[in-house]
Amino acid sequence: MTILAPARGAAFSDTQIDMAHGAGGKASRRLVEGLIVPAVMAGASGDALGDAARLTVGDAQLAITTDSFVVRPLRFPGGSIGDLAVNGTVNDLAAGGAVPIALVCSLIVEAGLETSVLRGELDAIGAAARRAGVAIVGGDTKVVEHGKADGLYVTTTGIGRIDARAALSAAAVRAGDRVLVTGHIGDHGITILLARGDIDLSADLRSDTRSVYPFAAALLDAVGGDLHWMRDPTRGGVATTLNELARDCRLGIVLDEDAVPVRDEVRGACELLGLDPLHIANEGQLVAIVAADAAERALEAIRGVPGGESAALIGRVDVAPPRTVVAVASYGGTRVVDMLVGDPLPRIC
Amino acid sequence: MTILAPARGAAFSDTQIDMAHGAGGKASRRLVEGLIVPAVMAGASGDALGDAARLTVGDAQLAITTDSFVVRPLRFPGGSIGDLAVNGTVNDLAAGGAVPIALVCSLIVEAGLETSVLRGELDAIGAAARRAGVAIVGGDTKVVEHGKADGLYVTTTGIGRIDARAALSAAAVRAGDRVLVTGHIGDHGITILLARGDIDLSADLRSDTRSVYPFAAALLDAVGGDLHWMRDPTRGGVATTLNELARDCRLGIVLDEDAVPVRDEVRGACELLGLDPLHIANEGQLVAIVAADAAERALEAIRGVPGGESAALIGRVDVAPPRTVVAVASYGGTRVVDMLVGDPLPRIC
Repeated sequence: MTILAPARGAAFSDTQIDMAHGAGGKASRRLVEGLIVPAVMAGASGDALGDAARLTVGDAQLAITTDSFVVRPLRFPGGSIGDLAVNGTVNDLAAGGAVPIALVCSLIVEAGLETSVLRGELDAIGAAARRAGVAIVGGDTKVVEHGKADGLYVTTTGIGRIDARAALSAAAVRAGDRVLVTGHIGDHGITILLARGDIDLSADLRSDTRSVYPFAAALLDAVGGDLHWMRDPTRGGVATTLNELARDCRLGIVLDEDAVPVRDEVRGACELLGLDPLHIANEGQLVAIVAADAAERALEAIRGVPGGESAALIGRVDVAPPRTVVAVASYGGTRVVDMLVGDPLPRIC
Repeated sequence: MTILAPARGAAFSDTQIDMAHGAGGKASRRLVEGLIVPAVMAGASGDALGDAARLTVGDAQLAITTDSFVVRPLRFPGGSIGDLAVNGTVNDLAAGGAVPIALVCSLIVEAGLETSVLRGELDAIGAAARRAGVAIVGGDTKVVEHGKADGLYVTTTGIGRIDARAALSAAAVRAGDRVLVTGHIGDHGITILLARGDIDLSADLRSDTRSVYPFAAALLDAVGGDLHWMRDPTRGGVATTLNELARDCRLGIVLDEDAVPVRDEVRGACELLGLDPLHIANEGQLVAIVAADAAERALEAIRGVPGGESAALIGRVDVAPPRTVVAVASYGGTRVVDMLVGDPLPRIC
């Protein structure tokens, strides 16, 4: 989800919407900041909190987040749209420092969809919710004519209770902080690309779709207030997420290119296709910014969570270059890592 | 929104999904009860509360509701998909006895949509939210290829705080209670039908899309605990809503056919098309069940709210016929008013 905070961007001047506006990179940001926020902001807005908005109701500090899922194909190695719809929303809450409480789930179904396909996704939604320990309390179903959707779209909204220990914001990030990632990056995006069969390449790869709440909870348990910021790097990948942070905290992020965990299959596919693994979507990872003193403890905590064995410290925050992400390789090369531009992998989630 | 409560229906045996499954009538109910609920229920479920689910977080009693909007055309006399997306969600909260607090809004955009069209709907969303006094705190945007949507689909989720005076449930409904409707029925559905231009008929008619929160608040102010149940009768119309109530409370609903406020234009279109105004969707009305002693006070309160001048008492709850809605006309005829069957007006919201 994108938080609606006061607009900082230029007015949106594109005459029509194209795929890149939904890709989570630069074009998405222009659309949100230049068109959506100025139109719908009702004066009061929620506080930004990762990918969830913060609300205070009575004595409860709540987080709320929503996302639509339009992934193609509906099923892929490691998961399906139903898994993504639950995990993606749970993960936005978790990255916002919230304990997921309940989800609601709205379906747009294309007429003619086989019931067996719908049943499979409903089962996936139910199973993913049980695994994540969150209740689905309601939903809606609309049906549109054949040719007016692509099988099934799912919109999931989650509500959580903010963990009192979480004091996460770009403003809390300091030069010297370390950048942690919970595991291999790019698995989801490349899995989807290969599942489409558009390119002549196969690899033994699965989507990483899962709840990252256990990682978020482990970080808060281990380092508490030394956890300064976290986000789940979905559309646009780690590069886009960290560029957003760099812009928001006005500092630089210096990545150690050799330390970033990337599977050989993902690296190989990216090289063939001219893509950067840092731009590829993840659906089961967190990127966290932790105070330097607490970084090793944070890493150890994540590695102790099942599925966190490949976690790594991949860089640091620095005063320079301001508002920029760079990657330094062992052979000495330094490159600027920009936000995602265009939409090389449409409908990835 | 449909609340996910333990399933009561038979297993769903249709082999594919068709338009009727999204129409809000019998087929929708079979889909929800026979397929969706058994699959996604995670053991714990929210309490049913009109069209919103109830959650307790800290000392706050919250309501949450979600709906996808797929209306065709996007704009029609009296409103547009943006108005519906805000008002529909606000209305589910209001009908659940909750004060709307915040909305999140997720867009699925068809590539190629003109920016001017999107801007128009974003403006409509912002304006409707301001009119309803509710903040939009976040959202999401996905873009799908041309031909994989129909311009724009909007999913809106709302969170509200339950009014402590609201003790609404089918179990609170008693024989002798009166049925109140806040105004003319069927305006929205017939407006959409005419806006499509599929039938050779024109009428000076506008959608009734609006927030019904002022009506709900006026009822609670005027009669408090004597308000037993309320709902906004959208897809499937007043007939489907009251059939659901009759089934849930196991009592009969006896409508006074002559008392139901229906504009001549709506009545005329329905007669020509073989439709029943009681089956036509509304987007700005409430149906309320009020204790007999409080009914006149409730009616007076609604008539005092701008837009409530046509409110009427249209029937009563009785022990017979159980679980059934009937309509009695002044000439003495009595007919059974069933739930909506099929989908005579697809994509009405």
